Amino acid sequence: MTSLHREDSECFGLALAEAHAGYDEGGLPIGAALATSDGVIAVGRNRRVQSGSAIRHAEMDCLENAGRLPASTYRGATLYSTLSPCYMCSGAIVLFGIPRLVVGGEIDFEGPRAVLEGNGVEVVLRHDKGSLDLIDRFIAEHPAVWAEDIGVVLDAEPGPPTL
Amino acid sequence: MTSLHREDSECFGLALAEAHAGYDEGGLPIGAALATSDGVIAVGRNRRVQSGSAIRHAEMDCLENAGRLPASTYRGATLYSTLSPCYMCSGAIVLFGIPRLVVGGEIDFEGPRAVLEGNGVEVVLRHDKGSLDLIDRFIAEHPAVWAEDIGVVLDAEPGPPTL
Repeated sequence: MTSLHREDSECFGLALAEAHAGYDEGGLPIGAALATSDGVIAVGRNRRVQSGSAIRHAEMDCLENAGRLPASTYRGATLYSTLSPCYMCSGAIVLFGIPRLVVGGEIDFEGPRAVLEGNGVEVVLRHDKGSLDLIDRFIAEHPAVWAEDIGVVLDAEPGPPTL
Repeated sequence: MTSLHREDSECFGLALAEAHAGYDEGGLPIGAALATSDGVIAVGRNRRVQSGSAIRHAEMDCLENAGRLPASTYRGATLYSTLSPCYMCSGAIVLFGIPRLVVGGEIDFEGPRAVLEGNGVEVVLRHDKGSLDLIDRFIAEHPAVWAEDIGVVLDAEPGPPTL
């Protein structure tokens, strides 16, 4: 069972705006937001290209922008992301005890989702076409940057021609 | 089976030096290093206190200091950490396909270790007393900072005295 919250569309819209801003900067177009029933705590977006960062996936950037928080704050929060979180970001959600995750589109989510749900995190999948169209466009334009961001080894470059 | 590498003691020593430097700064005394057979790529330490960072655990700081790397580099690397990685840092190791992890001491490692080993990461535990003594001292001195770093809700503060 997944629950729909009144604020979900608004908060997810903030994450999607971050994804678009990232695309406009030439970065990986993935955005995130962290909110409680009291309001939005922070937003963030993938910073690999813009900041040369290995760890600032959108969710991580959002958590970093939120600053140091006591665990009790995370316990009442929802994390929104335009794309399904990887193992690192899913691990951060489990670490901080964020109980609820709203995701736009999913790519390779099976393993991380099992970690999330195995640790009691509620996952709400929106099947948001806009989120997936944006990342699909970026992957087509910059396949090597995408591979780097998800730790995938690209096929070896062809060697020099042989006689 | 775990493998011992000739370089392990030297690289682990760099991680432990980072942990001591962190303690001397008033921070969480946990250090990390990333190395391949070609040499050390980067070191790092927990920056929660020093930088007000929510995500810069020692392993994450080290990965960030290493900068943007192609997945092929991670595939030949070992990550050293003075303390067993949490779910977030374990997820980062799985994300980037780092095949080998050397750990000083362990605290609450069962869940993250299952994620690591379930994804083929070799875990080498050194049972290093120096690493554990350092974090134990910090936890005794700053229990609230430690709780914040691992996402644990402290017992509620006692309310005002009642009549």
